[in-house]
Amino acid sequence: MKNTNVRVSLPAVCFVWQIAMIVLFGVFIRYNPESDAHWVEHMRTENISSDIENDFYYRYPSFQDVHVMIFVGFGFLMTFLKRYSFGGVGFNFLIASFGLQWALLMQGWFHFLDHSTGKIYIGVENLINADFCCAGSLIAYGALLGKVSPVQLMVVTLFGVTLFAVEEYIILHLLHCRDAGGSMVIHAFGGYYGLAISWVLYRPNLHLSKRLNGSVYHSDVFAMIGTLFLWMFWPSFNSAITDHGDGQHRAAINTYLALASTVLTTVAISSMSQKKGKLDMVHIQNATLAGGVAMGTAAEFMISPYGSLIVGFCTGIISTFGYLFVTPFLENKLKLQDTCGVHNLHAVPGMLGGFIGAIVAAAASEEVYSREGLIDVFDFEGKHANRTVGTQGGYQAAGTCVAIAFGLVGGAIVGFILKFPIWGDPADDNCYDDEVYWEVRLDHRELRAMFMCLDILSLRKAFISCM
Amino acid sequence: MKNTNVRVSLPAVCFVWQIAMIVLFGVFIRYNPESDAHWVEHMRTENISSDIENDFYYRYPSFQDVHVMIFVGFGFLMTFLKRYSFGGVGFNFLIASFGLQWALLMQGWFHFLDHSTGKIYIGVENLINADFCCAGSLIAYGALLGKVSPVQLMVVTLFGVTLFAVEEYIILHLLHCRDAGGSMVIHAFGGYYGLAISWVLYRPNLHLSKRLNGSVYHSDVFAMIGTLFLWMFWPSFNSAITDHGDGQHRAAINTYLALASTVLTTVAISSMSQKKGKLDMVHIQNATLAGGVAMGTAAEFMISPYGSLIVGFCTGIISTFGYLFVTPFLENKLKLQDTCGVHNLHAVPGMLGGFIGAIVAAAASEEVYSREGLIDVFDFEGKHANRTVGTQGGYQAAGTCVAIAFGLVGGAIVGFILKFPIWGDPADDNCYDDEVYWEVRLDHRELRAMFMCLDILSLRKAFISCM
Amino acid sequence: MKNTNVRVSLPAVCFVWQIAMIVLFGVFIRYNPESDAHWVEHMRTENISSDIENDFYYRYPSFQDVHVMIFVGFGFLMTFLKRYSFGGVGFNFLIASFGLQWALLMQGWFHFLDHSTGKIYIGVENLINADFCCAGSLIAYGALLGKVSPVQLMVVTLFGVTLFAVEEYIILHLLHCRDAGGSMVIHAFGGYYGLAISWVLYRPNLHLSKRLNGSVYHSDVFAMIGTLFLWMFWPSFNSAITDHGDGQHRAAINTYLALASTVLTTVAISSMSQKKGKLDMVHIQNATLAGGVAMGTAAEFMISPYGSLIVGFCTGIISTFGYLFVTPFLENKLKLQDTCGVHNLHAVPGMLGGFIGAIVAAAASEEVYSREGLIDVFDFEGKHANRTVGTQGGYQAAGTCVAIAFGLVGGAIVGFILKFPIWGDPADDNCYDDEVYWEVRLDHRELRAMFMCLDILSLRKAFISCM
Repeated sequence: MKNTNVRVSLPAVCFVWQIAMIVLFGVFIRYNPESDAHWVEHMRTENISSDIENDFYYRYPSFQDVHVMIFVGFGFLMTFLKRYSFGGVGFNFLIASFGLQWALLMQGWFHFLDHSTGKIYIGVENLINADFCCAGSLIAYGALLGKVSPVQLMVVTLFGVTLFAVEEYIILHLLHCRDAGGSMVIHAFGGYYGLAISWVLYRPNLHLSKRLNGSVYHSDVFAMIGTLFLWMFWPSFNSAITDHGDGQHRAAINTYLALASTVLTTVAISSMSQKKGKLDMVHIQNATLAGGVAMGTAAEFMISPYGSLIVGFCTGIISTFGYLFVTPFLENKLKLQDTCGVHNLHAVPGMLGGFIGAIVAAAASEEVYSREGLIDVFDFEGKHANRTVGTQGGYQAAGTCVAIAFGLVGGAIVGFILKFPIWGDPADDNCYDDEVYWEVRLDHRELRAMFMCLDILSLRKAFISCM
Repeated sequence: MKNTNVRVSLPAVCFVWQIAMIVLFGVFIRYNPESDAHWVEHMRTENISSDIENDFYYRYPSFQDVHVMIFVGFGFLMTFLKRYSFGGVGFNFLIASFGLQWALLMQGWFHFLDHSTGKIYIGVENLINADFCCAGSLIAYGALLGKVSPVQLMVVTLFGVTLFAVEEYIILHLLHCRDAGGSMVIHAFGGYYGLAISWVLYRPNLHLSKRLNGSVYHSDVFAMIGTLFLWMFWPSFNSAITDHGDGQHRAAINTYLALASTVLTTVAISSMSQKKGKLDMVHIQNATLAGGVAMGTAAEFMISPYGSLIVGFCTGIISTFGYLFVTPFLENKLKLQDTCGVHNLHAVPGMLGGFIGAIVAAAASEEVYSREGLIDVFDFEGKHANRTVGTQGGYQAAGTCVAIAFGLVGGAIVGFILKFPIWGDPADDNCYDDEVYWEVRLDHRELRAMFMCLDILSLRKAFISCM
Repeated sequence: MKNTNVRVSLPAVCFVWQIAMIVLFGVFIRYNPESDAHWVEHMRTENISSDIENDFYYRYPSFQDVHVMIFVGFGFLMTFLKRYSFGGVGFNFLIASFGLQWALLMQGWFHFLDHSTGKIYIGVENLINADFCCAGSLIAYGALLGKVSPVQLMVVTLFGVTLFAVEEYIILHLLHCRDAGGSMVIHAFGGYYGLAISWVLYRPNLHLSKRLNGSVYHSDVFAMIGTLFLWMFWPSFNSAITDHGDGQHRAAINTYLALASTVLTTVAISSMSQKKGKLDMVHIQNATLAGGVAMGTAAEFMISPYGSLIVGFCTGIISTFGYLFVTPFLENKLKLQDTCGVHNLHAVPGMLGGFIGAIVAAAASEEVYSREGLIDVFDFEGKHANRTVGTQGGYQAAGTCVAIAFGLVGGAIVGFILKFPIWGDPADDNCYDDEVYWEVRLDHRELRAMFMCLDILSLRKAFISCM
């Protein structure tokens, strides 16, 4: 029996890190001109005609949708296990709350630091980016669900956010890729990061917890809350930080279409795979979302509506096949235990999304985008003014590889850190069980059933003794 | 025992229809000027001063609310049955995802086809309209819940969306009615469409599934998620596609008020109808929404705040009475089995909403609306420039009748198509059961209870044998 | 056994009050210029350049978020009890629907009455304010959950909204305080109002219902839906009615940060308090929200990002300590039974929020805000043009005291009214039970378990008799 006591380590980590956040925010983080009380002066100097031009009104509705995806979407998607719903939604809540603070700093240092003042000036776009950055670590949590302690998750998040900020800087700034919805920087990175950690943390005797590695009827319905909020708000996710105007508009349309298409092929493959054509909730809960992941890069491009449908069509098939064949293969042959199947929902569709983005970028033309449109969409300005769409496509593909490499290498390192026997993780026969880290009140129905068992046993004993 | 195997038919329908969608989208669907990369050029030629004037910023928040209503609202409202929650939320997800694609095409051909290029140019308003169009078929699903196969639901949706686009064209374009929130085109049509199908598919021995036609404690709580998201976002539903400015603003206020009023009269009638004044969850889950349905046409008119309260007041009473008396009457006398009571929530309130709209339109005056306001609200322009409000009222009433006729006749025809014994629908003693179309994992508590039963039985046998 | 029959009283209250609302709305409530069909004329006379300047587009997304908090947030947060989920979410629905109508009138008379016409002109800001006003009574419901009848709750709401409007008038208009997110007027008032009522209604034998005063596994997951929607949308709550532009933007950022910080300290204290560091769902569901409450006043001020983190840090600790130590103390020593712990989530953090607001206001400077910013944020115009920030701080502190006083005195009076034996409240051994006011269908699993019990009993009897 392992020691799962986190009574010292969890509070210590929470307090120390939160205090560090306060100090670092005090030193570095300030309001940007759109959220500062100097806004009225700023409007005058910048010749802004109306409050409605404040970025808040362009992005806040999308921000709130993304926020729902991070906390309710990811959180409830992970409530599907019969006795790990508290851990699914609760630890998601904890690590996202920490991660977004650390993300504001990390992303701020890399992308938003004003070198003249040494400050990071934040507004609503930073909040969206911070939520995005957390998503990488939450995806990784999906591969680890039920097998790690909350302290380990805090470590996963600390390193996950850090790695994210670095790979994002390389991909978006150095390689000058476009990745509005994060197929590369969020999903491919987060997916492979989680898989690498899980691979290092392989538990040979995990079958001892098999009784709890599954859903019950109502936990599957809870998970559908997560699925649907992710599915519905994914158009906001992919359009939240794209260019104002047509950029946000187009990204939302493309994502909406891709996701609709994914649902039909997921249902088709799920039905084909089971006797009598019965559907499997695991597929409906997860593979239906793969279209949104795969559109993360290309959503803002002129992929065209039917192009979006094709992307959704293919990723629905690939993701469902992944749940049917690849996850068991990974577990049995590669010793990789992936609780939520993030391989099929994030890693592979994210990688595909990166390459789809590369192809669509390379196929862009002035005819389709207009001269100005091409410059706007791909940001061919400054030192990138002379980049061709072909070159851009190559860089997009390279960016995808960078994201995967960061995920795999970073995850392997973090995995080894988490192997130290100091983190309070559960024993192999104690996984997927909320009672390890939560006060669980027993259901009175269960209590009654237990008393009944005792009754029967005592009755039987009496019976046998009287024979 | 009927054959409920859909292993060939369901994947076939999904694949064939999705491929058809891709082909048709490839031929017909393009981005509109507000979602196309030419937007910057478009802004210049049209003299648009700012990105914020893109329709995306007027309608996207409402679109997302409508999207939540379609997938979480309708989906979770149908989870109330004790063992059909997967089917309720899952099939809703499937058919809405198909329906919205087909709706973009059908509505596009009728309303948005550019005859010079032969293309349909889409933006956020089309997405909202597509969601609306699906709503008609989802309402029909409410009458059929638990009694049909997913393949039948796909057929219901294919025809439902098609019929919707035609009746909508007749009502909105030929008759030039106003129907912002779709009392007529969505709710009256969808309600009667579902009722007519259910009437044709009457199952004389449905009582054999009676044990499953009811809720349990937690399934009723799940259904409240659906109820509340529908209730809260209905102001967005009724205002999503009205005129910019006062039109959207007023429609939201009127719907908000009508729904608040409905809750109180629903509670009052529900309490009066039961011994000791106990409330019935069926009423709270459903009848509280009737005010939103009934305001679908009149919400954008100057019905005045107290007028909205009166509409909500009356429809709450009528709808609750429907659940108490009309649904049993329909089932016993008219041989019409209406699982969710769509008669009381959509058909009748939708019809009433159409007539309320007619009355409010006929009572409009320049004094109340201003000259320009009257023209804007009722779109008295072009060949309709000389229409009087009285005439408009008459056309609104006629539109309601068209919607009902389309629902009844279309539903009857679709019902007969669904009677062919090829669709894999469940037997009469097998309805309302997720195990027919879903892999359902047994609850470990249930398994234990079963083992206990066996224990007791064997104990008893031993006991009896030793007597 | 008390008489809990509300078959006459509940419908009577609903009908009479709803009819009164219709009459009063008919006399007083009209559309404001932004929601009236005269808007086009209004634009011309006011020189408004675009529909997007309609306040609807500034505030509607925030309004919908607030609406979700009121109905799903508060509603589902109160589903945590094992057999009172219907009452939690259902009565919340009822009283909020009534309360918002009464709030539109009460707040209208105090703040928006046009004395030349005698009318109240409403728009989206009034809807937000009405939702806010309800929140006070819903908070009070938290202290009374499971112990009162729906008729009593209607009375609590009638008086709660009335008292709210008066204290709000005193605090915001007479004292000219700022309180965008309502730390004072909503949370401190609502919390102490509920506590005072609960204190007067003290039930010495409430332990007889102890078996039902607790959660089961799935009811705790339902409650997390409420927690998360409150947590996610709190930035909208605190920014919904602040100044356009930087005001809304900054309030959202500050609240987002404070809430993130609260989660970490709540987890830390919760883990420290239990053996083996296990977390308690009660803390995670409630104390994580305290940061939003405490930022209600200061969110729009230049408290700075690290200031927000500090507020969240402290309130998470204080609130969790409240659940651990103060709630038991109140119950055992002060005879105050507070079902949901509103003392720790609303009363104390609200009071703190008021004083934090006072301090931050007193510390404001032209350097930080700019001259114009200072005037805008604190509304130092008209007869308040010469007020200093120090004076403002004093008034803010005074406003907090006014809110608490109104809550305590008003609650005590309402409590005495509710002691009359005419309201149909449950007996001490019948609290926390939905079967008192709802038709509850028995779970078939429970029925089976019952039959099994009978089986065992009869078996045992047979067994004993044969001994």
